[in-house]
Amino acid sequence: MGSRARIYPVILSKKLLTQRRKEMSYFRDNIQQMEGYSPGFQPHHWRDEGWIKLNTNEDPFPPSPKVLEALREAIDGRIRFYPDSDAKSVREAVARVYGVDEECVIVGNGCDEVLSIAARAVLGEGEVMLMTRPTYTLYRVLGHIQGAKVLEVPLNSDFSLREEFFSQKAKLTFISNPNPPSGILYEKADMERLCEESGGVVVIDEAYADFADRNCLGLVEKQDNLVITRSLSKYMSLAGLRIGFGIASRDLIGGMKKVKDSYNVNCLSQVAAAAALDDVGYYSDKMKEIRRERDSLTEKLRQLGWKVFPSHANFIFALPAQLHASEMYEELFRKKILVRYFDTPETKDGLRITIGNPEENRRLLEVIRAIIGGEKE
Amino acid sequence: MGSRARIYPVILSKKLLTQRRKEMSYFRDNIQQMEGYSPGFQPHHWRDEGWIKLNTNEDPFPPSPKVLEALREAIDGRIRFYPDSDAKSVREAVARVYGVDEECVIVGNGCDEVLSIAARAVLGEGEVMLMTRPTYTLYRVLGHIQGAKVLEVPLNSDFSLREEFFSQKAKLTFISNPNPPSGILYEKADMERLCEESGGVVVIDEAYADFADRNCLGLVEKQDNLVITRSLSKYMSLAGLRIGFGIASRDLIGGMKKVKDSYNVNCLSQVAAAAALDDVGYYSDKMKEIRRERDSLTEKLRQLGWKVFPSHANFIFALPAQLHASEMYEELFRKKILVRYFDTPETKDGLRITIGNPEENRRLLEVIRAIIGGEKE
Repeated sequence: MGSRARIYPVILSKKLLTQRRKEMSYFRDNIQQMEGYSPGFQPHHWRDEGWIKLNTNEDPFPPSPKVLEALREAIDGRIRFYPDSDAKSVREAVARVYGVDEECVIVGNGCDEVLSIAARAVLGEGEVMLMTRPTYTLYRVLGHIQGAKVLEVPLNSDFSLREEFFSQKAKLTFISNPNPPSGILYEKADMERLCEESGGVVVIDEAYADFADRNCLGLVEKQDNLVITRSLSKYMSLAGLRIGFGIASRDLIGGMKKVKDSYNVNCLSQVAAAAALDDVGYYSDKMKEIRRERDSLTEKLRQLGWKVFPSHANFIFALPAQLHASEMYEELFRKKILVRYFDTPETKDGLRITIGNPEENRRLLEVIRAIIGGEKE
Repeated sequence: MGSRARIYPVILSKKLLTQRRKEMSYFRDNIQQMEGYSPGFQPHHWRDEGWIKLNTNEDPFPPSPKVLEALREAIDGRIRFYPDSDAKSVREAVARVYGVDEECVIVGNGCDEVLSIAARAVLGEGEVMLMTRPTYTLYRVLGHIQGAKVLEVPLNSDFSLREEFFSQKAKLTFISNPNPPSGILYEKADMERLCEESGGVVVIDEAYADFADRNCLGLVEKQDNLVITRSLSKYMSLAGLRIGFGIASRDLIGGMKKVKDSYNVNCLSQVAAAAALDDVGYYSDKMKEIRRERDSLTEKLRQLGWKVFPSHANFIFALPAQLHASEMYEELFRKKILVRYFDTPETKDGLRITIGNPEENRRLLEVIRAIIGGEKE
């Protein structure tokens, strides 16, 4: 591949941010020194130009027709009013679908906001925040914003948890389960142990749990320091509308509500979320299809000699056999297929690939075969 | 009025929150001790039951038909994708309408989020946050969330600024201009002095400036510590969709962007905001009508003997002549007219009344006349 220019836009933009640091002076020191979170790259107007977007773990299928219908009916003069500050219709729907008390639910402007609210409510300057390395890098950013001491305990090379992770004391622990970028699913017993030994609040980020064989929702009743977060971005195809929620004890939810903006979830997102949660059957079928596609893609890449970790999420982490991952990223990019490459010591050999729809996955395999076969398409 | 039960739901809910404080133990001390912000009360299903809602400063007119049309066209399978994390189309529209560089604009999930982002970026534990008393009480909540030392400098009885306000040194100053609940508009020269003397970041919250004779946007170029915030909730009838923005130097905006959630503004709100900003003529006409209604309502209440402060916003602060403000609040409530009553030493004698549409304002006056005349309707 030689000397040609690399094309990881995310990494370049981080360097630019770093150069600008010293110019700022009005901010808190921790803000001045930190780097912001870098979301997955999106080429301008990619929707119009035939890109296949497998880089930010969106659902490959459209939302339920009932959601679109409910949204259309909500577009009128009522949008001039503030939304329900407590998102009651959404909390009721969550309570019904997940079998929890609606007073134990907080709704956020995306799951990211629920994570941010937890950090702001729990984590003071200099206090310890615990996370794995690698995982969702937003946790680190949230810790830095709080001026916390961020402790990143490495995972084993198979992405399993190390014993050291359990022996840390932390005011706040973030753990994603299933955990990106591998999609590994940790045992419920391990999550329970974490709650019992951490000494602080534990957030189990279950943004991808809808694609997994099991989850930890049942632990909320027993563990009063546990917050479970969920997202409608992946499972219910609502990434654009920003709906996530947290489930925890009434006391934890009560404290988190003090921190959230009053009108944090807009009126249309509340309509869409309630309608989606009322049509679980539609999404359940699609979820099964995504799981089938995930297992099929895993198998086919393994047949090409790639190492693919067993994933319980709507993405896989795959180590190309024929080219380095960064080169494969570039080759796919040139063919207008976007996957995610993270240039860190723990992840530099793999690609995180979102499970697309059957046609997208077929095309991905076709392009990969062409690349490793050296064929011109 | 005697001993009958009072009906300020907001105040009651604050007391309940206070009682629950001691049960929490996982939070930061400042979070445990603070009270959350209390948004204006909204009776359940009020839209269906003939309420007149003059309590949260929404625009009394519907959004532009072009906004509704743009929203309808955006309701399709694309909502499954994450929104533009940088809200470029909105920033471009803001840049065009307000004559600023799009790199000097940050878009928030409502103006409240922009205020929150500023607090998180600038204000460390124990640092000084400055505000007036009274004003928008969210500022105090944001300071408490940061664990800051919140300094509230009283206003004069006519709501003008005291000299002491300028002599304070603060890491972050929030000032609303026009300033609720009175709607008073401070001089640009005073705002400039504040920027020059505060020693930290100054946020001039211009959520209501669209209804005023002048604003401070022009100061951004000269004052590198100034953030101006604006809202589309009031002027552009989009309270339900949560769109606000901040305008400041590139460096201030750059630091604030580190703190904001990546996908903080949902895709439909971005569509609506860009469409609204493209149809300024529609809103400009409505704004003039609101100002005419404001001046007319002010005059008519004064004719009833009420003291009404000169307002530059889309609300007025009025001191009833015949009953105490709290009693008038209750009487209006019974007649299904919602206004805002703040039970604090500085505001307990007045009502903050949002300017409604002509029919709502006519009905408000009719009901007030009936109440003070002791008539049965």
